[in-house]
Amino acid sequence: MQVAASETLAARIERGDRTALARMISWAENGDPRFAAELAALWPRVGRAWRIGVTGPPGAGKSTLVNELARVERSRERTVGICAVDPSSPFTGGALLGDRIRMDDRTLDPGVYIRSMASRGSHGGLARAAASACDVLDAFGFATILLETVGVGQAEYDVLDAADTVVVVLCPGAGDGIQAMKAGLLEVADVLVVNKSDMPGAERLQNDLIEAVHVRFTKRAWSVPVVAASAGTSKGIEDVLEAVAQHRAHVEASGLEAARRRKRIEQVRHSVSEQLAERLWGPKGLRGRVEAELERGASPHAVAAALLEEITQGLNRPTEARR
Amino acid sequence: MQVAASETLAARIERGDRTALARMISWAENGDPRFAAELAALWPRVGRAWRIGVTGPPGAGKSTLVNELARVERSRERTVGICAVDPSSPFTGGALLGDRIRMDDRTLDPGVYIRSMASRGSHGGLARAAASACDVLDAFGFATILLETVGVGQAEYDVLDAADTVVVVLCPGAGDGIQAMKAGLLEVADVLVVNKSDMPGAERLQNDLIEAVHVRFTKRAWSVPVVAASAGTSKGIEDVLEAVAQHRAHVEASGLEAARRRKRIEQVRHSVSEQLAERLWGPKGLRGRVEAELERGASPHAVAAALLEEITQGLNRPTEARR
Repeated sequence: MQVAASETLAARIERGDRTALARMISWAENGDPRFAAELAALWPRVGRAWRIGVTGPPGAGKSTLVNELARVERSRERTVGICAVDPSSPFTGGALLGDRIRMDDRTLDPGVYIRSMASRGSHGGLARAAASACDVLDAFGFATILLETVGVGQAEYDVLDAADTVVVVLCPGAGDGIQAMKAGLLEVADVLVVNKSDMPGAERLQNDLIEAVHVRFTKRAWSVPVVAASAGTSKGIEDVLEAVAQHRAHVEASGLEAARRRKRIEQVRHSVSEQLAERLWGPKGLRGRVEAELERGASPHAVAAALLEEITQGLNRPTEARR
Repeated sequence: MQVAASETLAARIERGDRTALARMISWAENGDPRFAAELAALWPRVGRAWRIGVTGPPGAGKSTLVNELARVERSRERTVGICAVDPSSPFTGGALLGDRIRMDDRTLDPGVYIRSMASRGSHGGLARAAASACDVLDAFGFATILLETVGVGQAEYDVLDAADTVVVVLCPGAGDGIQAMKAGLLEVADVLVVNKSDMPGAERLQNDLIEAVHVRFTKRAWSVPVVAASAGTSKGIEDVLEAVAQHRAHVEASGLEAARRRKRIEQVRHSVSEQLAERLWGPKGLRGRVEAELERGASPHAVAAALLEEITQGLNRPTEARR
């Protein structure tokens, strides 16, 4: 493919250039300052895909399920973009690497694009990078986007703000249902999947989850379905997609734009908090100054108050002017 | 006690006025703007107390242990200030209320002061208020400060930045040791206490903890002791205080000021983050503006970038000037 020297990544992505797609996602991942202008150019094309977040505890079979969901979507002639957020690099974890290699077979199909994102050591910026990657995949034109993240903590939950439907995958095993409730996994679920449904305890887990959903979420408009599946043997995948389709119909009926705006507000909030924390406390941050002021005998209370005053100074004036 | 109209709370606290002490802690708890000046006046008197943080999962017997530690310290003629941080109001939880009433018997003793702090609905400001309360108790002149908090999440761990020695209390029962390891409780411990040591499984838990400490923290200068106690029957309390004394000797030998400065830097950091989050996303925050800009068709990425620029604008200039 010929590339004009002056052509922007956005323009190349608009005409389906996968090399440009890969580079732009790398820019998102690395926090490249050039990313913002390209995304702004692509922004009118964002919002056409349906984004399915897939999360759950380690070992629940998320990657296998994502692979199967992609397979069935492709059999229905829908294109699929996959963004898999790994808490550690995909090149260090044995199981993860295995999963990815298996999934990479699907990359021979031009209707699928798979991207793994490592967390770059810290959790900072992960949600932001994943959301940006989904935006780029969306602008590129994939019909379905699968966003996979392990459900272990707040940073991973924040990733799910980029999803329209959140599928939480659990499997039978020592107290898995209880763990999920404790970890707040149920709270983020739009669809619950009991994976490895041929294993002992699957029915019990499914009944426990149905009861938990019934007890906890009686006041919500959307009743979270509990679907049995066995991704390893390709069972129940259509049922999962059917539950996602029902959730999509529900969201669209009750106002898709409002739902997306709520999630985008959360994205802005997490993005600002993350970047602010990096600016304030990263290598070029305020630590040295705080140390010096404490050394001079100021209380932590006084140092914090002075810093806060300084930080919000610039903010206060324009905000008041706008009212 | 006669109180001159013009006398500051700080001056009254310096001469031992407990009403002033109570009011000043309330100011800390409510975020009263008058608190800062009073604390600044008292600051030279802060740092003489030894602050013992006591944390652990709900039901481990923290309140009973705190009560016993206070009793033994008083029998040694040391004055004791207690700050108990409750995740919910002490007036709603039955067990908590019971514990507090029992502890309040000790308030007949003028050498003890007890203060319960509720979390005011959200977790925001809790760590800051608790640290400030400890500072006030310290300035008042209590020799030992006991800071009790339930070990359930990051907000509660942040409270422990105000402590010189952190005592983590566990008790035998379903997977308690494992839960503690998962929850990161071991990481914050300077002293581990196996409470309810007369219950079945206590010895096993103690051995597990000794092994866990041995395996995980081989490279640390301080070797975390595991102490058996039974606060309900007043057993082992001296052993806990002996372990605290040994930790104190270790900290003092390796540099008390440096250790406290490290914790104070963390206090500043958490305090700034908390207050900033409140200013940015609280009732008078930026949510409306973010909504309006998203509505105009900007991407979350662009909105976050613009906000971040504005927030850090005021900060950048003076920081660069200082270099």
